[in-house]
Amino acid sequence: MRPPRRLRLGVAGLGRAFMLMLPTLAHHPRVQIVACADPRPEARIRFTADFDAPAFADFGALCDDPRVEAIYLATPHQFHAAQVARAASAGRHILVEKPLAVTLAEAASMVERARAAGVHLMVGHSHAQDGPVQTARRMIAGGEVGAVRLITAANFTDFLYRPRRVEELDTAQGGGVVFSQGAHQVDVVRLLGGGRVRRLRALTGAWDPARPTEGAYTALLEFEDGAAASLTYSGYGRFDSDVFLDWVGEMGLRKDPTRHGLARAALAGVADAAAEAALKTNRGYGAPGQPPGLPPVSPPEFHNQFGLVIACCEKADLRLTAEGVELHGDDRRLLRRTPLPDLPRAEVLDAFCAAVLDGARPVLDGAWGMATLEVCLAILQSAREGREIALHHQVAPEGF
Amino acid sequence: MRPPRRLRLGVAGLGRAFMLMLPTLAHHPRVQIVACADPRPEARIRFTADFDAPAFADFGALCDDPRVEAIYLATPHQFHAAQVARAASAGRHILVEKPLAVTLAEAASMVERARAAGVHLMVGHSHAQDGPVQTARRMIAGGEVGAVRLITAANFTDFLYRPRRVEELDTAQGGGVVFSQGAHQVDVVRLLGGGRVRRLRALTGAWDPARPTEGAYTALLEFEDGAAASLTYSGYGRFDSDVFLDWVGEMGLRKDPTRHGLARAALAGVADAAAEAALKTNRGYGAPGQPPGLPPVSPPEFHNQFGLVIACCEKADLRLTAEGVELHGDDRRLLRRTPLPDLPRAEVLDAFCAAVLDGARPVLDGAWGMATLEVCLAILQSAREGREIALHHQVAPEGF
Repeated sequence: MRPPRRLRLGVAGLGRAFMLMLPTLAHHPRVQIVACADPRPEARIRFTADFDAPAFADFGALCDDPRVEAIYLATPHQFHAAQVARAASAGRHILVEKPLAVTLAEAASMVERARAAGVHLMVGHSHAQDGPVQTARRMIAGGEVGAVRLITAANFTDFLYRPRRVEELDTAQGGGVVFSQGAHQVDVVRLLGGGRVRRLRALTGAWDPARPTEGAYTALLEFEDGAAASLTYSGYGRFDSDVFLDWVGEMGLRKDPTRHGLARAALAGVADAAAEAALKTNRGYGAPGQPPGLPPVSPPEFHNQFGLVIACCEKADLRLTAEGVELHGDDRRLLRRTPLPDLPRAEVLDAFCAAVLDGARPVLDGAWGMATLEVCLAILQSAREGREIALHHQVAPEGF
Repeated sequence: MRPPRRLRLGVAGLGRAFMLMLPTLAHHPRVQIVACADPRPEARIRFTADFDAPAFADFGALCDDPRVEAIYLATPHQFHAAQVARAASAGRHILVEKPLAVTLAEAASMVERARAAGVHLMVGHSHAQDGPVQTARRMIAGGEVGAVRLITAANFTDFLYRPRRVEELDTAQGGGVVFSQGAHQVDVVRLLGGGRVRRLRALTGAWDPARPTEGAYTALLEFEDGAAASLTYSGYGRFDSDVFLDWVGEMGLRKDPTRHGLARAALAGVADAAAEAALKTNRGYGAPGQPPGLPPVSPPEFHNQFGLVIACCEKADLRLTAEGVELHGDDRRLLRRTPLPDLPRAEVLDAFCAAVLDGARPVLDGAWGMATLEVCLAILQSAREGREIALHHQVAPEGF
């Protein structure tokens, strides 16, 4: 009997998203990292040392490498569309970091290119893949708690004060919290609410002239079936909603509540945009001074989380925690504990491998990512134009 | 030197609102309860025993009693308009329980009658009078934290499953959570946000056919200055947001988290609407079996609260607690402790006495209550008509 085959994965973009996924990529039992592409020579050197695999400066060369059957696309948002087209034309399956793209036209073209080439296009990592979100979705889809009627989602972080490249602070290039963080929150809310948003009204905030992009938003969504959702996000680094998750942070790690304001304080000493971009690069993969070797990985203690999420359903309210789903019924309250993955964020690679190796349809496919992008764009448009926006590209989550 | 004069107050309606205010009414140092009106003989008997003061069956007789200089109007919503007109024509100042009225036309007429008669018309008790809300408003108005940009308010209670009269479950008569509970939440949010709401979009939920009124809503408000607010309320008795207030309940008392579902369970054994109304009456003032004498009162340990409230301002986020206001700044986090009143809910009578006895303009006057009612009505209308509603009767909070 042959051992189970592993997915031969190429990585495009050795930046922040890659580093967050690195322990999972390096240790996932169904994934073999076979090549990469990145413009930074020091990142490529590090990669070949870590993975004993080729590293290309050119994205096209990665796509054409016959060892590569699928690509994890962790490049800046604005490159996603062209790169998906290139990878699809080479017959590679693609896992794209969120957001799928920056415009709907790009997203539609990506979906079409992947379809025409017969390759999988999936979005991830997304917090909709977190175990408790999936558990809640199964409870809803299985009929245990009735239909969703009202979802409340609120997340307060220091997102805007982590080191950024200039384009990450430019909305037109996909910067700001709506594209980067809204994509997660909308994914979570759409998954719980059944996917199909009918219309929305939103307001955004850009309160720091030194970081001239949206740092906050609040949105009221109406689903096709009449269910409602309230989404709020602030990345201004003041109130921290991890207090509602018993001080487990976004990545599922215990957090020290006294480290408040650290991101802002660190950034306050940075002279200008170039220095800030350098700071981000200096923390990047392959930068000098980093310990050698692949990062160690240990089984997670908690799930990833994305702030306060409460789904009021016909028969019970569900509250997501870092351990699972609290069910608040008419006469009982219990915690439906969600089994932890063996590796942090394993879920996204589990789903991608299931798609490519086993032929399972991924829930967060290209059409799903396009629908979430449509919601994010509508949040920006509603705030800009001061009116409600109707949505036209929404899809239901399949596979539950 | 004469001792300070006390406000000679008549009470109209000895129901649930009165009972919640009773300890405060009985013990407030600036208030003397001199008469009452209520249709229930047993309540009147109890009142004369408790206060050694006349009790009328007829509201007009209370208004015309020369001992009465001001009236606390705690009758059902639908009677407020006619009773304010009657009281004003008798020259009595009026403190009206929220909501001020059920229609805008009624509210406008009440404001006009009070103005014409030269009497004070004030709304309360409202949770906008809670100490921490007032502290936060002072911090905002004083410039300490900059302008408000985004308010997040969410409250999950068992409101809908407390015993109700039939009209309390009929929206047209002022029933449901939007009138009764929205009035509090809108008051709090308007006070923090500067009062003037420009427009809103909302969705409501009526999920229990046995209690056919709104039990939940979510609303997105835009203030005149562009600030945003997200309001969410569910009274369906499942998830309980007092967990966010460290299990201090709405009335500022320590709460046992294991008593979940009690309101629903108690109601489940009730045969029909008549039995439910009787249940409410049997818990009412003067019902048999109640201990004699005025309820004892002790200094509160915590402030009243109305759920999760976070106000993101230009320079800091403010989070209300049962002890005061948490300030989450760029580089500091602190609790601005708010001094506790000597009596629970003393604030509303403090303000009413300051108006009538000292000539201070109350913040929550008739025009204020009308503006809050306008927002509540717009929440209902927006949900019903599926569109954004513009507001036209909004006022700023004066006196800060």
